[in-house]
Amino acid sequence: MKISLDAMGGDFAPRAVIEGSLLAAEEIESSIILVGREEDIRAHMSELGAKKPESIEIVNSTEVIDMGEPLSRALRKRDSSIRVAANLVKSGRAEAFVSMGHSGAVMAAGIITLGKIPGVERPALATLIPTIKGTSALIDVGANVDSKPVNLLQFALMGRAFIKAAIEKENPTVGLLSNGEEDIKGNDITKQAHNLLKNNITNYVGYVEGKDILLGDVDIIVCDGFVGNIILKMGEGFVELLPRFIMKKIEGLSEGEGARPSLEYMSSLDEFDRLVRENFDYNQYGGAPLLGINGICILGHGRSKATAVKNAIHMAEGFAKGRLVCEMEKEFSKPPTLGKPVIN
Amino acid sequence: MKISLDAMGGDFAPRAVIEGSLLAAEEIESSIILVGREEDIRAHMSELGAKKPESIEIVNSTEVIDMGEPLSRALRKRDSSIRVAANLVKSGRAEAFVSMGHSGAVMAAGIITLGKIPGVERPALATLIPTIKGTSALIDVGANVDSKPVNLLQFALMGRAFIKAAIEKENPTVGLLSNGEEDIKGNDITKQAHNLLKNNITNYVGYVEGKDILLGDVDIIVCDGFVGNIILKMGEGFVELLPRFIMKKIEGLSEGEGARPSLEYMSSLDEFDRLVRENFDYNQYGGAPLLGINGICILGHGRSKATAVKNAIHMAEGFAKGRLVCEMEKEFSKPPTLGKPVIN
Repeated sequence: MKISLDAMGGDFAPRAVIEGSLLAAEEIESSIILVGREEDIRAHMSELGAKKPESIEIVNSTEVIDMGEPLSRALRKRDSSIRVAANLVKSGRAEAFVSMGHSGAVMAAGIITLGKIPGVERPALATLIPTIKGTSALIDVGANVDSKPVNLLQFALMGRAFIKAAIEKENPTVGLLSNGEEDIKGNDITKQAHNLLKNNITNYVGYVEGKDILLGDVDIIVCDGFVGNIILKMGEGFVELLPRFIMKKIEGLSEGEGARPSLEYMSSLDEFDRLVRENFDYNQYGGAPLLGINGICILGHGRSKATAVKNAIHMAEGFAKGRLVCEMEKEFSKPPTLGKPVIN
Repeated sequence: MKISLDAMGGDFAPRAVIEGSLLAAEEIESSIILVGREEDIRAHMSELGAKKPESIEIVNSTEVIDMGEPLSRALRKRDSSIRVAANLVKSGRAEAFVSMGHSGAVMAAGIITLGKIPGVERPALATLIPTIKGTSALIDVGANVDSKPVNLLQFALMGRAFIKAAIEKENPTVGLLSNGEEDIKGNDITKQAHNLLKNNITNYVGYVEGKDILLGDVDIIVCDGFVGNIILKMGEGFVELLPRFIMKKIEGLSEGEGARPSLEYMSSLDEFDRLVRENFDYNQYGGAPLLGINGICILGHGRSKATAVKNAIHMAEGFAKGRLVCEMEKEFSKPPTLGKPVIN
């Protein structure tokens, strides 16, 4: 099994991507195809003092899509590392592709090159989130804005396939993110989707609130990508900033009347920081799969360092070995019951 | 100066509200009017072993709006504690009213009884949020769903008046919450609002992301109430659950190969927990003012205990003494420049 990896995508590419691939090569069964400027890749490898392992091959591509490039221009680069990496899956030379690069270009490459699963209107990005009770899925975390009710229903179906494939959870529960639990809550689109989900999703528990995201009582939380993206980034910000915030408070305390905190206390804070990062940091999850397409495409965080890249490759291998696409096709094999429209 | 307080609203009413009013009475200059079933209020006071202070008076109201009651039924209760508390402001007997009760009924009472400030289309709920750099405002946190672009513009204007009155910050910066910083990001409504804000708001910094909420580089973050409510509750959940989450991890560690964490470590965790709560807990902020109405209305959290009630009363007194309504009228004194519509 082979994973194609966009060597040129991400804020710390190609160095961090190459480092990540070297780490992954030691841990996974699959081999890795690094796609990008071969010369650059080889130069970075030797700078890293690494000999290219047998299980990593390099496929040259001449163009690079910059992180901030307009999508229209990015899509015209036919020999970009993103496009070539996706093509390797299309042609059957690889089973999955991974990129930390330009998110719009990666999603477009996934959809255009691999195609959508029949019945899927809009593919979506999903992510696993750590909760008190284990692991849940949040979908969509940024592929779509202005989702229609039927898109939210499809996100629920995709979420089911995702959670089955990712954590082997059968009969997962599904909740729809809203501004309250009662049926009268929700904006217009959410209310319409609530009705669709009631009619079509087994184990649909209804609306869930912001506080439920970490609680873990629901396996899959469905939302529009505008909201999902804000939530995800807020969570990342919280994890990153909380230790700094507390440290500032402690400094404030020690400048004031109280005694300076003890060394034990300070090292405990480091420990706390480590625990928070280990459990909430996106680097540990590696990436978000683009769901609803005919193949495996993992979009990593732009700020990924080597560990995050390695974990994204692990995720890609896991899905490539597993039943993600098969479960997805099953979910979309029958047309949805639309039911009565909600009158507002 | 007098603050009217709905004694019957909230999950722990009337007990927690009465306790909160007793705490506040010792700290504030204003007197408090407790509104609700006089008999119940007096019974709870004596159960608490408290003698009613001079600075607290009781106004009897016969009806109570339950937390989960449909709004249509709630609004028919003309002698409800919420309505009577609002009427006291209308008639000039009190300068502000505070309720931890049914949020829809409180907002309706505020808008219907006190009226909107000329030019305001939809009042909004604002809240102060702690950040790395100090304090920011988030608006709307739940009064409105499906806000139109012009509503988001008005939230920015209200936010300006709010932050000036609340933390005396002049020339505050304003950001619009979106799924990315670039101009091409945003859903349809947000893009249109982006254009309006550019044309009308001094110190508008453009789109901000979820990670910026805690960062504190922007004084006012504007969003639709559907999103704001989800964010607020997610933040609350994070604060509440993070210590539990970490504790579980530690228990997991100590059952595994590692040594059981030391007592120092455990007590540091308590300390951390305390610091998080002191800085992020809604109980410390007390409540969210309903902005855009002709008077001061503070909506407290339904789960408020005595400290939160006390802090909501403090907030009400602060705004009643200050320049909130005056600043609000100034913000709405000139019609907005609509500019060219955004073509998507």
